[in-house]
Amino acid sequence: MSSVRIGFVSLVGAGPGDPEVLTRKALARLRRADLVLYDALVDPRVLTLGRRARRFFVGKRAGRHALSQEAIHALMIRAATRGHRVVRLKGGDPFVFGRGGEEALALQQAGVPFEVVPGVTSVVAAPSSAGIPLTHRGLSAAFFVVSGHDRQLFSDALGALTPNQITLVILMGFARRVSLAAELMEKGWRAKTPAAIVSDGTNPSAAVWRGTLGDLAAGRMHARTEAPAVIVVGEVAALDVKTTVLQEPACDEAPRARRSTR
Amino acid sequence: MSSVRIGFVSLVGAGPGDPEVLTRKALARLRRADLVLYDALVDPRVLTLGRRARRFFVGKRAGRHALSQEAIHALMIRAATRGHRVVRLKGGDPFVFGRGGEEALALQQAGVPFEVVPGVTSVVAAPSSAGIPLTHRGLSAAFFVVSGHDRQLFSDALGALTPNQITLVILMGFARRVSLAAELMEKGWRAKTPAAIVSDGTNPSAAVWRGTLGDLAAGRMHARTEAPAVIVVGEVAALDVKTTVLQEPACDEAPRARRSTR
Repeated sequence: MSSVRIGFVSLVGAGPGDPEVLTRKALARLRRADLVLYDALVDPRVLTLGRRARRFFVGKRAGRHALSQEAIHALMIRAATRGHRVVRLKGGDPFVFGRGGEEALALQQAGVPFEVVPGVTSVVAAPSSAGIPLTHRGLSAAFFVVSGHDRQLFSDALGALTPNQITLVILMGFARRVSLAAELMEKGWRAKTPAAIVSDGTNPSAAVWRGTLGDLAAGRMHARTEAPAVIVVGEVAALDVKTTVLQEPACDEAPRARRSTR
Repeated sequence: MSSVRIGFVSLVGAGPGDPEVLTRKALARLRRADLVLYDALVDPRVLTLGRRARRFFVGKRAGRHALSQEAIHALMIRAATRGHRVVRLKGGDPFVFGRGGEEALALQQAGVPFEVVPGVTSVVAAPSSAGIPLTHRGLSAAFFVVSGHDRQLFSDALGALTPNQITLVILMGFARRVSLAAELMEKGWRAKTPAAIVSDGTNPSAAVWRGTLGDLAAGRMHARTEAPAVIVVGEVAALDVKTTVLQEPACDEAPRARRSTR
């Protein structure tokens, strides 16, 4: 009786961008992977942490999918069946708008051993990096999260939310921001509601726009970005809790603030 | 001219429990900290990673706060002013129901340098560890997150959500689960809506209960737990995407599945 190695798939959350915001478990999986299948939202610096692995882009660029969802399933299953350690790397968390549930079900049905390694979702981390907490005493005691990518799904989901009560977080809505904001106002959200857009949150290239829902609907937010962006609508979007890292630390060092005296 | 060191406060997310689900940045901050102020929801195994630091419990136990919120602010500010590197460690993410926004504002107002280090929130990771994705094609395209701790805040926030449409995630609601479920049904949620409770998600001691909202309201979920628990209500709560870790790996090893043959 001998033992034949069969492979394993890890559905791994790559976090919001900054490689320091990767989890220890995700890093361990990347370092041991034979094959990494990654999406468009995965930061290139995170990818390079999995040095020995072959890497394949399986996401969407310029509106086109590199591979169909079924082809991704087949690729994962084939590689694992051949004994490879596969990391399926997704931006943020694999179970938040990432079709991770579908991929997990496909692996389960194929009898392929797998696990889910959670990640820091940009739902929370992008606003946080801009000084915006999603909940805040006296402003919002709950938050609602939706993808802005699909017009119909967005409209249907948003129908479940009464306007002007709690924080609304929209992922993958940057390209459609004007029509999304117009739809919110049609549904009864006030034009003066604070809104913020955080692009590339947690990264050195991060940018924050602040204004109102009315500004957004009127097309007053002009930036062009290919970076992932998170839209926050609600009173908390006006908060601006400025962090004050005076010296950017290396990964294994705590930041150190210095103040000079005479 | 000499340089006087002033301190620094890191508001750090400790993640959902499993120390492997800590971020690299959080680990680095813990290792360099002089002082760690931690909450009840922080896993003890995460705490021991900050070996050289003094550690103070500032959370709530048996319904009583060890310190008032104002006393926590004063303690952080005083320690930082004396040159210490302070880690304010919170379960999950510091900006999700953690009063992190208030603490950040207090630091900002006191002129104390600080940063926010995001964490993996149990909103996502606890359900994920039980095989429940919060969004899933055809089941739910959005999710609503609320704390069940405060009766009035819960009721008010929930008033913004139309029943039976999307996934509802309730944090800190375990002790009040019967009355929370009853309130949902009064508001129009169907008794047969799938519900799940994940306690101590991501940990070896994790437990998952599955049933319906009606079961919950009827008091048919009897477990007693002091562990943090996340309640999921909605169609996705019936999903059970079983992960299959056959050998539990060490932190720096990828799991390896083996199948014996003749």
